[in-house]
Amino acid sequence: MTEKMNALVQLHEGYAGTQTGPDISDLSPFLAYRQVVIPAPAKGQALVKVDMAAVNPSDIHFIKGEYGQPRVLGSPAGFEGVGEVVSGDTPLVGQRVSFFASGSGAWAEYALADASNLVPCRPDLSDVDAAGQLVNPLTAIAMIDLVKDSGAESFILNAAGSQLGKLLIALGRDEGIKPIAVVRRSEQTAVLKTLGAAEVIVSTEPDAMALVRPMMKALKPRVLLDAVGDQFTADMFFAMPNNARWVNYGKLSADAPALGQLAQLIFQNKRIEGFWLSRWMKEVDPARIPQAFVTIQDRFVTQKWVTDVAGIVPLSKAMDALAGVLAKPDGKAFIDPRQ
Amino acid sequence: MTEKMNALVQLHEGYAGTQTGPDISDLSPFLAYRQVVIPAPAKGQALVKVDMAAVNPSDIHFIKGEYGQPRVLGSPAGFEGVGEVVSGDTPLVGQRVSFFASGSGAWAEYALADASNLVPCRPDLSDVDAAGQLVNPLTAIAMIDLVKDSGAESFILNAAGSQLGKLLIALGRDEGIKPIAVVRRSEQTAVLKTLGAAEVIVSTEPDAMALVRPMMKALKPRVLLDAVGDQFTADMFFAMPNNARWVNYGKLSADAPALGQLAQLIFQNKRIEGFWLSRWMKEVDPARIPQAFVTIQDRFVTQKWVTDVAGIVPLSKAMDALAGVLAKPDGKAFIDPRQ
Repeated sequence: MTEKMNALVQLHEGYAGTQTGPDISDLSPFLAYRQVVIPAPAKGQALVKVDMAAVNPSDIHFIKGEYGQPRVLGSPAGFEGVGEVVSGDTPLVGQRVSFFASGSGAWAEYALADASNLVPCRPDLSDVDAAGQLVNPLTAIAMIDLVKDSGAESFILNAAGSQLGKLLIALGRDEGIKPIAVVRRSEQTAVLKTLGAAEVIVSTEPDAMALVRPMMKALKPRVLLDAVGDQFTADMFFAMPNNARWVNYGKLSADAPALGQLAQLIFQNKRIEGFWLSRWMKEVDPARIPQAFVTIQDRFVTQKWVTDVAGIVPLSKAMDALAGVLAKPDGKAFIDPRQ
Repeated sequence: MTEKMNALVQLHEGYAGTQTGPDISDLSPFLAYRQVVIPAPAKGQALVKVDMAAVNPSDIHFIKGEYGQPRVLGSPAGFEGVGEVVSGDTPLVGQRVSFFASGSGAWAEYALADASNLVPCRPDLSDVDAAGQLVNPLTAIAMIDLVKDSGAESFILNAAGSQLGKLLIALGRDEGIKPIAVVRRSEQTAVLKTLGAAEVIVSTEPDAMALVRPMMKALKPRVLLDAVGDQFTADMFFAMPNNARWVNYGKLSADAPALGQLAQLIFQNKRIEGFWLSRWMKEVDPARIPQAFVTIQDRFVTQKWVTDVAGIVPLSKAMDALAGVLAKPDGKAFIDPRQ
């Protein structure tokens, strides 16, 4: 098959060696809108005709060469989406599935995915919920599992106004674990309290740390879910009780946070670690994953989770329009390859 | 029994809230040489007539109120020593034992210890080896167990010229795991290579980090045993390969090390944690501890380990003389309560 498709292809190979974070104002140094050959599924793979692709912070880290896997020159970008299986080594041909792209990305008319990672979608699950149901919702499930394992009755999350933050708050609340939400803008407070945050800390306010200390004593959180990696996060960690775990999964800040009270690692049994969904999926009991997708789809369909849409950009216009949608303070961006 | 004994008693209660490290030039703000009542062993305890007590960095942290347990005003200091069991709830009365003091410290003519923690000594084990056989040697055994669990063929340790550092190097070498020794003074290099260090890094030399990077690629250590907690240690950690663990167990430096490459925790599965012997003893398989003391005593008696003695100070002269012995660059200080 040498039919062609439209795609946003990568202009670089491998890693950049930079650490500039997930902001982007111009895609053109990293991607180009091109016609490329529709990829052929290898053994164990499926070809998916993409209906909608999600844009996550990890996608931006990836195209900039700052993510945990190397870029592939000339190959379409985009980690996840939803579409119809059109061919491949799977009984799911003809079905609508959410997928992690593998070998050829989701920001294209067609994408490749490992057949073992396809997630069949309920018909009542909307395209935007389906397109983004892997990266963020599965991360939320995985990280709340980790919070539950800590045995604490509360947990801390920062970047709490992000899409993932909102999923974590609602899920934590529904599981009976009090979310302590950290944000930079005080305008976010009311929305997050409505969603289920027990407390909201505005890290940019001068007395923020003074509010953190009594909150730690009262609520005793043991897990700090950190997408920011700034000094405020380190200071919160050192204010947490014994056995606290600082779990970093993103780097929105350019700070190199300083460890001012390292002895707490010894005497208070604290530790600092990372969370990566790719690793979690390899290490978790495999039965947990399909079980998680039942929960995820049910939560979206029953509106326990809501996808805030910042904008849906046609694939043909993404080079110009995507950065503007990503710059909006709230909501998630999507790419529609049918347009 | 209201008989009296001589002891170095604590002048403070609880924690100091400071972080000044293990250096000390004057004991008098923290301790006084006094006559106190010989303590009576409670149920489960033993009274030991002390022959020799060790002085470890943790003792100095403790009397300064900077260790993981609170000071007790008027109670003798000193975590470990050797002596004869004179009474108590134990079949070991009359025997020579090494002990962790509990309730009344080892820098005294008599000390209390939990009967379950007494370690009978081989007759051919010298007093200095016996007095210091718990804190450092057991820590060395525990941390090399942790290195072995990492599956790597090498490990890194800093403060490598310390007494514990020397135990770790010799034990690592004998276990077939290459020690990478980090020191501040280049004069230590030859001694540590003779002891078994595969490589010695002098952290104060300007090109030290340039030497570290190729060494990490060649030897692939996964555990960094850190008694220093400085920026050089953090930088080494970020130069280590995937799955590296930075295990902090002491704080010789006043640095607040900055985490410049936090994303490695996510994508390279690195983590930062603490080691505390007290916690390890509670969590390890209880059979490991008596087994470890067989190894420890055998290693000392056969000279696989050698205790470098900086000086043995009579208890009656310790207030004036101990700080001078502790200031020596090499070797361990002891207190002899029989003088």
